[in-house]
Amino acid sequence: MYIPKVNEKTNVSVLHSLIKSHSLGTWVIYADGELVVNHILFLLDNTLGKKGTLVEHVTRENPAWKLLSSADNSLVIFHGAETYITLFWYPSKHEHSKAAPTWDCTVIHVHGMPRIAEDRKWLLEHINVLTDEHESNQALPWKASDASEDFIEQMLKRIVDIEIQIEKLEGKWKVNQNKQESDQLGVVAALLSRKDSQSIEMAFYISRCVSAAKDD
Amino acid sequence: MYIPKVNEKTNVSVLHSLIKSHSLGTWVIYADGELVVNHILFLLDNTLGKKGTLVEHVTRENPAWKLLSSADNSLVIFHGAETYITLFWYPSKHEHSKAAPTWDCTVIHVHGMPRIAEDRKWLLEHINVLTDEHESNQALPWKASDASEDFIEQMLKRIVDIEIQIEKLEGKWKVNQNKQESDQLGVVAALLSRKDSQSIEMAFYISRCVSAAKDD
Repeated sequence: MYIPKVNEKTNVSVLHSLIKSHSLGTWVIYADGELVVNHILFLLDNTLGKKGTLVEHVTRENPAWKLLSSADNSLVIFHGAETYITLFWYPSKHEHSKAAPTWDCTVIHVHGMPRIAEDRKWLLEHINVLTDEHESNQALPWKASDASEDFIEQMLKRIVDIEIQIEKLEGKWKVNQNKQESDQLGVVAALLSRKDSQSIEMAFYISRCVSAAKDD
Repeated sequence: MYIPKVNEKTNVSVLHSLIKSHSLGTWVIYADGELVVNHILFLLDNTLGKKGTLVEHVTRENPAWKLLSSADNSLVIFHGAETYITLFWYPSKHEHSKAAPTWDCTVIHVHGMPRIAEDRKWLLEHINVLTDEHESNQALPWKASDASEDFIEQMLKRIVDIEIQIEKLEGKWKVNQNKQESDQLGVVAALLSRKDSQSIEMAFYISRCVSAAKDD
């Protein structure tokens, strides 16, 4: 991924946080001369390995897990907020005509080779943790143990667990860092007024980069 | 991409429509033994080629375009709405314990080999069309011709245009098609009550699949 220096995000806690809040990953492997790409829910265990470990499960019908023995590349991509930025949101636009609209986005690339984890106990634990993570904000959180034992056993037989120890993390935060503060704040105000979740999340990232520049 | 038959979406107009509304693509090439992935805004021209043509521009500083001569694979991924589905939204959950939560998503894979289009006139036309597409819903749509000529000339020198004639389109709509109608409608109602744009978009996809099943 091409990352201009100004857009580089290296803080591991910030990157982990985005992975946890946008955990549907785009998983790319290259095997037997083909790009094999699947869209999978990942769980990040930040206590395992130096940079954390990703855990996923795929149905046995998905050929990707059988290709892992011949895969020589693997990348998981996580997408945060993205939004179009019209240059009318820059106050400086009204002073000169030397700007173009852009598209802001936040994205993470996780490098590391996948390994199949064939262990029933571990697989059940993964399902439990994954469920707890996503049910925690429900009024009546469901637990995997609420399902019948037969159902859980059948489900475990149908899936394969895969873990990826993170070797390298890349973060690209394209959030108007190359603009003057008044333009950044103009964009934040416009995004907040739109009230949708993508715009509010993007306003948060841009505000953080304004504050960070002040701390320099 | 593994696509169970029930989740396969083949209608070209529907796929084109999602590309137009979610046009930040994840562009994957494999070149010189490496996965090279960038996140680029695409413009779809559905009048060019049998399945349409994607057009993108990258900065000359991005090494991806120089690698195209040695690339033997290229894939562009477009992501539509995605959301967690708790099984509390299924009325049938209250009758049995044979279900698990899931993650619904809509995604498109576009296959086709990229070609560099080194033509100043064509590049300017691309920038004009791209700008018009994204500025059309602004109160005062900006046009590239509003910028100073010097600025436009400098910008054109800094970017490279790439076009990808679409050879194959794959669509995966994982939108609760495997559930009974009352459960699908329970999910739609819950998503609509959340009012955020991702949930509303997903409710739309699920409703469409309920209507389509009735038309069978």
